Amino acid sequence: MRISKLVGERLKDSASGTNVKSHNFLLRAGYLKQVCNGIYSLMPPAQLVNLKIQNIIREEMNKVGGQEVLMPVVMPKEMWEKSGRYYSIGQEMVRFKDRNDHDMLLGMTHEEAAVHLCSNTIKSYDQLPYMIYQIQTKFRDEARPRAGLIRVKEFTMKDAYSFHYDKEELKDYYQKVYESYNRIFKRIGMKNFIAVKSDTGMMGGEVAHEFMLLTDIGEDSIVICPHCDYKANMEVATSIDQKPTFDDTQLQEVFTGDAKTIDEVCHLLKIQSNQTIKAVCYAIVGDDTNTVVIFIRGDKEVNEAKLKRVVGKEVAVKDLAETGFVKGNIGCINLNIPNTKIIYDTSLKGLCGMVTGANKEGYHISGVNLSRDLPNIEYFDVSKVNEGECCPICGKPLTIKKGIEIGNIFQLGTKYTKSMDMTITMPDGSLVNPLMACYGIGAGRALASVAEESCDDKGLVWPMSITPWQVYFCPLRMDDENVKATAEKLNDQLTQKFEVLYDDRNISAGIKLTDSEIMGIPLRVVISPRSLQNGQAEITIRKSGEKIMIELDKLEEKLKLLIATEMEELNG
Amino acid sequence: MRISKLVGERLKDSASGTNVKSHNFLLRAGYLKQVCNGIYSLMPPAQLVNLKIQNIIREEMNKVGGQEVLMPVVMPKEMWEKSGRYYSIGQEMVRFKDRNDHDMLLGMTHEEAAVHLCSNTIKSYDQLPYMIYQIQTKFRDEARPRAGLIRVKEFTMKDAYSFHYDKEELKDYYQKVYESYNRIFKRIGMKNFIAVKSDTGMMGGEVAHEFMLLTDIGEDSIVICPHCDYKANMEVATSIDQKPTFDDTQLQEVFTGDAKTIDEVCHLLKIQSNQTIKAVCYAIVGDDTNTVVIFIRGDKEVNEAKLKRVVGKEVAVKDLAETGFVKGNIGCINLNIPNTKIIYDTSLKGLCGMVTGANKEGYHISGVNLSRDLPNIEYFDVSKVNEGECCPICGKPLTIKKGIEIGNIFQLGTKYTKSMDMTITMPDGSLVNPLMACYGIGAGRALASVAEESCDDKGLVWPMSITPWQVYFCPLRMDDENVKATAEKLNDQLTQKFEVLYDDRNISAGIKLTDSEIMGIPLRVVISPRSLQNGQAEITIRKSGEKIMIELDKLEEKLKLLIATEMEELNG
Repeated sequence: MRISKLVGERLKDSASGTNVKSHNFLLRAGYLKQVCNGIYSLMPPAQLVNLKIQNIIREEMNKVGGQEVLMPVVMPKEMWEKSGRYYSIGQEMVRFKDRNDHDMLLGMTHEEAAVHLCSNTIKSYDQLPYMIYQIQTKFRDEARPRAGLIRVKEFTMKDAYSFHYDKEELKDYYQKVYESYNRIFKRIGMKNFIAVKSDTGMMGGEVAHEFMLLTDIGEDSIVICPHCDYKANMEVATSIDQKPTFDDTQLQEVFTGDAKTIDEVCHLLKIQSNQTIKAVCYAIVGDDTNTVVIFIRGDKEVNEAKLKRVVGKEVAVKDLAETGFVKGNIGCINLNIPNTKIIYDTSLKGLCGMVTGANKEGYHISGVNLSRDLPNIEYFDVSKVNEGECCPICGKPLTIKKGIEIGNIFQLGTKYTKSMDMTITMPDGSLVNPLMACYGIGAGRALASVAEESCDDKGLVWPMSITPWQVYFCPLRMDDENVKATAEKLNDQLTQKFEVLYDDRNISAGIKLTDSEIMGIPLRVVISPRSLQNGQAEITIRKSGEKIMIELDKLEEKLKLLIATEMEELNG
Repeated sequence: MRISKLVGERLKDSASGTNVKSHNFLLRAGYLKQVCNGIYSLMPPAQLVNLKIQNIIREEMNKVGGQEVLMPVVMPKEMWEKSGRYYSIGQEMVRFKDRNDHDMLLGMTHEEAAVHLCSNTIKSYDQLPYMIYQIQTKFRDEARPRAGLIRVKEFTMKDAYSFHYDKEELKDYYQKVYESYNRIFKRIGMKNFIAVKSDTGMMGGEVAHEFMLLTDIGEDSIVICPHCDYKANMEVATSIDQKPTFDDTQLQEVFTGDAKTIDEVCHLLKIQSNQTIKAVCYAIVGDDTNTVVIFIRGDKEVNEAKLKRVVGKEVAVKDLAETGFVKGNIGCINLNIPNTKIIYDTSLKGLCGMVTGANKEGYHISGVNLSRDLPNIEYFDVSKVNEGECCPICGKPLTIKKGIEIGNIFQLGTKYTKSMDMTITMPDGSLVNPLMACYGIGAGRALASVAEESCDDKGLVWPMSITPWQVYFCPLRMDDENVKATAEKLNDQLTQKFEVLYDDRNISAGIKLTDSEIMGIPLRVVISPRSLQNGQAEITIRKSGEKIMIELDKLEEKLKLLIATEMEELNG
């Protein structure tokens, strides 16, 4: 490929509107063009990367017996009514009416379509397990697209669905795909990724894992035990909480005036936040009447994913205007507001000497003893794990890291096969709903995640396995006739053996070298009037910056070796 | 691939709801599953074919310098307002509002997105020509889906867009892609296809060609001269019409009573239809006031595509109730109905002695001499070519055939680059809007078209280049231990070298052989207790039915040869 013909331009300046470095480089190096908020066109180099990622995924899916199919993007409402998700999924799913006034939707996941495809096509337990997968465009109307391809509305995704006749067999196959995912991420050049337990969310089911790339730009918090194997998304993470102990005193109303926040109350009463009982109010989405009040220890935060599971519905932070609650003074003693569901977090269990709001303006109550004053309540774990709390497995202190979700896998059980009446015949002749699991990877997000993890201050740095071109061939001084003639010959020769981006422009060395760096091509080959005097070319390894002078007649061999070495590392 | 694990079942009976044989076989052989009207899931074998077709298209696009990109399926209204197509395209384009009440659409073609992608990324004439292309899901809300993948709502399409600095350069490049298309269709195994001149339709521009597979199930009519190179879609076809001559007489009112249709009038007056002047009424879509009346010779039909171009708007046959027209007696002499645009077809030019309606119930007028009675009218070609009319190039009789459109290419001119302000710098420093061309192929329709052309009474017959598997390995009597052991070993061996579908089922020979035929796999290898006694296998060539007995140790070599021979023919 001649760079003079390559569609896309390299920009000197930082792209506006992003502070994520990979996004910035992808825009500046001509990989992406934004169409509108959360929607991008992939320029030729990005599509090359995208296809290579897809092929690696395809190879690994085929290795575990996956059968590639293609299900529709546009589906009729009826299919999604059976599973109930036509109604339970919110605004992120696009719904529209077709020309015959029929309700249609854009699929953002394909459990329903997979069950439809497989129903009646495999009928007996001894044909299981099997897995179908597809690589397809998905649209999800994200409220907050961000960071380029990290969180977009439209993306290419590999989604897979496996079917099983019993739990053991499901678990075995799930483990196979789990390992397949590890291989995929390693092969595309990701380094610092882990699998963590995760929330099953709108998918349903019992067990789920997310694959996370650990990075500061991640939106997810991951709780990790550095001492054992425990790793979980904050949404489902638990901990052993070392409870504080305070003197057990009598209940007493305390004037606290304008002190409303935990900080203000603590400052006034000279106590730590872990001696307070914090109240947090939520609304139930689609239910304007009822309020949920969570009482939780003052040093802890509400975990909305856990709360959602306890409530069984979507929740959202509630505006307290006109509810009857006294903002900043809500307390668990004598709270009598109609239409209120009260949830106590386990962080409070067994504590005494605590401070809570008095449910009247300007006052709090001290000396709360939960066992004595609220003897019959049930506790639920609806709090986030704090850094330093203890691992639920080994008891040692936990750490918290940021991550990008790069893949997810779910054990779905019979949620979809049951609601859609899919059955298989068991050995005893009985009909049962098969168990199901599903597995997703976004190709675009994988591209952006690798870009983020691998890039440096100068630009992108592609792993050899997914780079758009292996070699950036960069002759300097194209106005020199010898350089130009040699360059054309060498380009023809290299193109036979390698994927080459040929910088055929007659422009300054500075721009050419900078472009080669920002574009992230792993190997750069420079020739110049001077190097040709010695019959040599200079190879620069993008990742390490290492430079190698090499005779022209050994260039091909050397490049082959460098490529093979990196590919072995990635595949090994 | 073991057929026992293959998702999809082979049906014994014909699929209901179709009379197109390839569609029937694709359903029966487990290639397709219908999701709803015009929307299908591709089962594993169909997706294998689909991917092979895509790869052939990709290779050929790359050969002419195409750069693969990926543009979005969902696009914002603003982009399509600039070109005007947000309003000019009808119900076949899906429009919806996103969660922020923003108007969005599902792209069924990507001229606007291509101009957006390329604007400012290539700036100088000397970087032209270049072409971008994508392979992507498209949704078109078809009013009348039919024949399985032949006409669907959702489909995978390759669409390409090239940019040019002058007409010569555009023409040269267009010719290259034209040849590339011929290679693509040949390589995927199509035989009886031709390129014809076509209507530019909603794309705009001046020159366009369609690639047509000639087949009786086609919806398009193609006018072909068997004597020279002339080939055109009926929508744009012209002919030299040998005008009939009749005695030139005076105008005379004739009582015709209930005779309303051309047939009835001809029968009553004992004349041929070519002596009558037929009136056909159309409404202009979006204009409730005006009517278009076409006068055309009675033996000719109105060509709506031509009419649309003359009117400049969409047209639809008009219901005459409450218009003031006398149905069956509309005539061109003294027709005075307000809000009526009258168009005379060229088939009438210079004729005399003609019969037309008298614009009153029960009467016609004979002896119409167009030059004498309507001296100042303009004629337009708005008629369909009839079989046997003469070729506009060589003057010899034309034939008419049916075809499926399998690809189309358009010279668009500056329609999109002008409306979207895309410019390039010319040698003299001036800025001009580049010329543009676009090129489409539907992968799913290609699959269905090849299936239709190649199938026989027993089922599908895939060309070697796009077959889901090269070899159907079919051991008979899997209950025989020797057969089973040999089969497993042979399958392992063949799978190393070929794409093999292994019929590992222990069922009757009849079902296995029938399945191999309906699925259309080009080579079938049968082993049985009897063949193994002689150390032999039987190869059957699906296309010809030819059978070859071969020693097991020569099987691999023979299969290689058979595959290579067919691939050479296809690629040759």
